Amino acid sequence: MANRSLAKDHADTCVLVTGGAGFIGSHTVVELLARGYHVVVVDDLSNSSEVALERVRAIAGLAPDDSRLVFYEDDILDRDALARIFDAHDIDAIIHFAGFKAVGESVAKPLEYYWNNVAGTLVLCDVARDHGVKNIVFSSSATVYGEPEFIPITESCPKHDATNPYGWTKSMLEQVLSDLYVGDNEWNVVLLRYFNPIGAHESGLIGEDPKGIPNNLLPYVAQVAVGKLACVGVFGDDYPTPDGTGVRDYIHVVDLARGHVAALDWMGGKVGTGKAIGLGSIEGEPAADGTRRGVGIFNLGTGKGSSVLDVIRAFERACGHEIPYEIKPRRAGDVAENYAACDKARDELGWTAEYDLDRMCADSWRWQSTNPDGYATA
Amino acid sequence: MANRSLAKDHADTCVLVTGGAGFIGSHTVVELLARGYHVVVVDDLSNSSEVALERVRAIAGLAPDDSRLVFYEDDILDRDALARIFDAHDIDAIIHFAGFKAVGESVAKPLEYYWNNVAGTLVLCDVARDHGVKNIVFSSSATVYGEPEFIPITESCPKHDATNPYGWTKSMLEQVLSDLYVGDNEWNVVLLRYFNPIGAHESGLIGEDPKGIPNNLLPYVAQVAVGKLACVGVFGDDYPTPDGTGVRDYIHVVDLARGHVAALDWMGGKVGTGKAIGLGSIEGEPAADGTRRGVGIFNLGTGKGSSVLDVIRAFERACGHEIPYEIKPRRAGDVAENYAACDKARDELGWTAEYDLDRMCADSWRWQSTNPDGYATA
Repeated sequence: MANRSLAKDHADTCVLVTGGAGFIGSHTVVELLARGYHVVVVDDLSNSSEVALERVRAIAGLAPDDSRLVFYEDDILDRDALARIFDAHDIDAIIHFAGFKAVGESVAKPLEYYWNNVAGTLVLCDVARDHGVKNIVFSSSATVYGEPEFIPITESCPKHDATNPYGWTKSMLEQVLSDLYVGDNEWNVVLLRYFNPIGAHESGLIGEDPKGIPNNLLPYVAQVAVGKLACVGVFGDDYPTPDGTGVRDYIHVVDLARGHVAALDWMGGKVGTGKAIGLGSIEGEPAADGTRRGVGIFNLGTGKGSSVLDVIRAFERACGHEIPYEIKPRRAGDVAENYAACDKARDELGWTAEYDLDRMCADSWRWQSTNPDGYATA
Repeated sequence: MANRSLAKDHADTCVLVTGGAGFIGSHTVVELLARGYHVVVVDDLSNSSEVALERVRAIAGLAPDDSRLVFYEDDILDRDALARIFDAHDIDAIIHFAGFKAVGESVAKPLEYYWNNVAGTLVLCDVARDHGVKNIVFSSSATVYGEPEFIPITESCPKHDATNPYGWTKSMLEQVLSDLYVGDNEWNVVLLRYFNPIGAHESGLIGEDPKGIPNNLLPYVAQVAVGKLACVGVFGDDYPTPDGTGVRDYIHVVDLARGHVAALDWMGGKVGTGKAIGLGSIEGEPAADGTRRGVGIFNLGTGKGSSVLDVIRAFERACGHEIPYEIKPRRAGDVAENYAACDKARDELGWTAEYDLDRMCADSWRWQSTNPDGYATA
């Protein structure tokens, strides 16, 4: 079955967002709705809350029964449920966020991670193909670079071994999706390699809601700021960086969300048509209708590194009080510095990150302070 | 659930062989039966024939109802069917051959290959774990070395990008199985990286039975020798090798089969106990019962390279007449030389290949000439 064309008005375009109730997913749904896309969310709520989607509706000014946002509580591994969703909606493209994402848990439960993330994506692609949908934007990660060969990291930086099963699922799925295009040039694939998404929607209505003790720096800092945790652990202050702490490329989740919308536009041939896809991608010819075909790979970051102490200080400015921290030994596997070159996304997608670290922390604090227990308070 | 011990008599040990009706699988079942193991074969016959198992019974001198060899026509993706097999038999270990294996087809049908090979293995491991079976020997391939960094290839040669989805499924599954052990040290994993298996059982009763035009050199040569195909294509005669044609490490399938039995013995702690597992493996402590735990990686080859023309001449000696061949251009992705260092298998498993190229060709010819249409003539 031929692939769907994306070269049409947004209001006629229906996007299936898997994992759309999650942190990045929910912010992306907001941006899609703002641009006029119709959105179908499938999420099994195993690590998210339907409250996020109620908040998304509030932000977008949609009534609960507005058909521009439809939600299905289903697992992408459920082939029959997925087929019913594709039967019920004229889906044009998929943005695929659904997946387990806890690094430590993935080490303890590799079979569950490979099954959920890899097999789940295979089922999704199979059902999509059966319904003539071969446009997919995939939620990948800078983790596929492993220990990066050079910094700033461009898309032509070779992939290295991942350091945990979570990272391997991202790396393997990039390969699977690229192979789909090689086997069938109707496929239209974008792999978005995220750096460190933080922040929250400026409304304070949606944000990151990790279960248990947060794994990542920013939600940890936010929970210390709000008094739920006592002290931030800073792992290593003797790295060869300006202040000795690790440097990462933090990106506002709203910027990241907009990167997905830019990727959809790019796939539809509305932005940057005719340009070579460039390094790290498989170049495809635009179809007769102008829709692009191929595999596009893009880093989504700010291109700017911030240290752990930079983040803590920015969060102190946001919340207005001091945040206690303690220097601890380096963690195995951590690198000193890691940040993106984002020229390709700028040149090809016409996208750049707009928000700085202070804004990320201010928005994160608004979310955290008004929702100290995340969506559980709703 | 704790893993099963393999430190017991073979006659008490039951091995599940997935893909046991296939080329390497059927020869391995012969060797297992000869060593007294009980064997349960699961094979969906999608690329094999039940006749192979009737022939295996004949070679082993087993009556059709002898419970030492039991066959189930099932797909490893069928979780319920697998669970019934594990419920019905006290399975101690798995030798996992089942998988699609046609390189060209894998490029055209990546989703089918990833689903069948990767998802199938995930289901198999999940059901096995649920039944307390965490001993697995996996059918991997030298293809995981990609373009090898050095020759002869040792197990410490880094894995490189595979060149097709078939190869990626092998590489990914090595990672998945290694991660199983990291997450649960009860697992006992052996990854066997095959070089180029050819030949057939000396009885002439079982051998390679490819569907359609063979992809690999030897079955192609055999079908030219028997008059089914006209002429062997030799892809490139200007490689930097003694006669200009590509050099590979061909291994007799019976030697390869015995490598699997040696791997089972090694897992059970009966051979080489107490030795470090060595490079390219994850070292595990033997359990209290002497059963080894960890991830062992072994090349199975002869350590000797043979050129395409060497193979054609050896086959001419075997069949007693000339085999027409034609020099054609090099194929993309082919390397000049590729052969194994097999010291590790010799030192750790106590295994070495015994049969030379003339024997491989003589046995292959016996099979091909008495079964010109493979099992279809039965």
